[in-house]
Amino acid sequence: MYMDCLQYVAPSRRVFEQMRQGAVDAVHITVGYHEDFDQVVQNLANWNQWFETCGDLIARATCTDDILAAQKAGKTAIFFGLQNPLPLGTDLGRVQVLHQLGIRFCQVTYNQQSLLGAGCFESHDGGLTDFGREAVAEMNRVGMVIDLSHASPKTCLQTIETSTRPVAVTHANPWDWRNVPRNLKADVLDALFDRGGMLGFSLYPHHLKDGSDCTLDQFATMVRTLVDQYSASHFGIGSDLCQDQPDSVVQWMRNGHWRKSPDLTATFPTPPSWFTDNRDFPGLAQGLRDAGLTDGAVAGVLGQNWFDFLQKAFAPR
Amino acid sequence: MYMDCLQYVAPSRRVFEQMRQGAVDAVHITVGYHEDFDQVVQNLANWNQWFETCGDLIARATCTDDILAAQKAGKTAIFFGLQNPLPLGTDLGRVQVLHQLGIRFCQVTYNQQSLLGAGCFESHDGGLTDFGREAVAEMNRVGMVIDLSHASPKTCLQTIETSTRPVAVTHANPWDWRNVPRNLKADVLDALFDRGGMLGFSLYPHHLKDGSDCTLDQFATMVRTLVDQYSASHFGIGSDLCQDQPDSVVQWMRNGHWRKSPDLTATFPTPPSWFTDNRDFPGLAQGLRDAGLTDGAVAGVLGQNWFDFLQKAFAPR
Repeated sequence: MYMDCLQYVAPSRRVFEQMRQGAVDAVHITVGYHEDFDQVVQNLANWNQWFETCGDLIARATCTDDILAAQKAGKTAIFFGLQNPLPLGTDLGRVQVLHQLGIRFCQVTYNQQSLLGAGCFESHDGGLTDFGREAVAEMNRVGMVIDLSHASPKTCLQTIETSTRPVAVTHANPWDWRNVPRNLKADVLDALFDRGGMLGFSLYPHHLKDGSDCTLDQFATMVRTLVDQYSASHFGIGSDLCQDQPDSVVQWMRNGHWRKSPDLTATFPTPPSWFTDNRDFPGLAQGLRDAGLTDGAVAGVLGQNWFDFLQKAFAPR
Repeated sequence: MYMDCLQYVAPSRRVFEQMRQGAVDAVHITVGYHEDFDQVVQNLANWNQWFETCGDLIARATCTDDILAAQKAGKTAIFFGLQNPLPLGTDLGRVQVLHQLGIRFCQVTYNQQSLLGAGCFESHDGGLTDFGREAVAEMNRVGMVIDLSHASPKTCLQTIETSTRPVAVTHANPWDWRNVPRNLKADVLDALFDRGGMLGFSLYPHHLKDGSDCTLDQFATMVRTLVDQYSASHFGIGSDLCQDQPDSVVQWMRNGHWRKSPDLTATFPTPPSWFTDNRDFPGLAQGLRDAGLTDGAVAGVLGQNWFDFLQKAFAPR
């Protein structure tokens, strides 16, 4: 079973066909960066159209049984998540409402300060807010996975400590391998895994050693090192694949509408040659095997570990 | 000229008649605590109805000339403000849109963490956020008064320092007189006045020495002390009058929808006997005179200072 726990592909029949060609059984798709509640609903409505027109290739999923059913039917299960808690506003009740709409992952923040916590690019790292603590408890209750990607170190540590369920970092890499604010230092990794959390390895060039030039061997060796240090069971893939998105999208990701002088120079980095779309999953498996991972570890990292984690994480209290 | 720079009265013809009986020329009315953008628009639409049905008593105001015109016509000018920047979302462009809708005051936060800064009841005082700095600059540009009521000490100090225009605390008192988180310590007052800022004295019992039992003499003596210490020109009134609101409103003010276990025991405190509605403004003037304020200082504190401040503050850059 292959599962990718973070993509922001521009949906198209072609992309869904590639998911099938790559034998990808499940994908977590982002439906909100800077969107407010209404705009997230619109994104979900757009996806409902894709399920209708491409129902031979993809299926909407809200639980792990949906993955098994999709797998059996030869389809890719699509889960939804938010990279920003903005659609919650300050209304705790919207956690459950968003869950009822199918949202299964929610980041505590996206880069900057949110109402829940500080982001990895925010000047002051204030950690989890009072409302953040309420939201964590509510996400724990309804079975929405708390995603600490893009959060600040203090926010990560306090959320891991506060959450009564294991949390996830769906897409990031170790800071020791590539020292950028989006990657995680050892103390955060230690705390995350101590509490049963998951890390999805990112394939986004900014998170990779040597960026776009990172080789599959470099990546796989890093995975091997982490698996040896901790346990394979804590790891999965969150590729951060942004296939077919125009550069205006990365500019919007970076700036939203919160800056008077947005950075309009940003462009999507060239993906590594060995991971440009969903068809590259089998190659990824081979790379991990070549780096010395056992077949069991490869199967775990490429899908089974996320499946096992989500099976528990999605169950409501 | 009498001006009250913060009220949350339940609008009614009776209340507007009392404004006229008290010779109150202008009132800043709150149209948002925990409301999102759409809900603020709805509140403004409701007020438009009041302007239509009670146009003989009140007039919508967006500049100080509107106050003079209302005064000439024997009406009370009504300004609007937000006690929470939530309707901005993370969209800097909404500062100007809200200004175009008539919003002339905006708090940096309401008690807890906002996307702009920390509130006076938030556990961690992280000060002004990166987006907060952008929003301050934009409010400075369009001529929206930054209101630091309900903000944390660090947020107050950083906003005062960041803002290129004098800012206001529309409704609070000195912490040295009544030590509650909503009142201001001397360092904040010093910084506020050093940069030309204004403080509106609050008449809300929780901000008064001895609460509901605070006497007019106690209040007026505190005002006299502050006027002597700084200068009368920095002070006005922001009564925080919440006349005719049911207790469900104070529970909603306190809890919004962000807490799983809201405090539902809150009730509105009994107002001091000498300030229960807008007809008490002349009595307030007498109290201040009795405490030894000059006629000029009384006129300044009860209205002219706000007028002079707003004349500059509302002018766009």
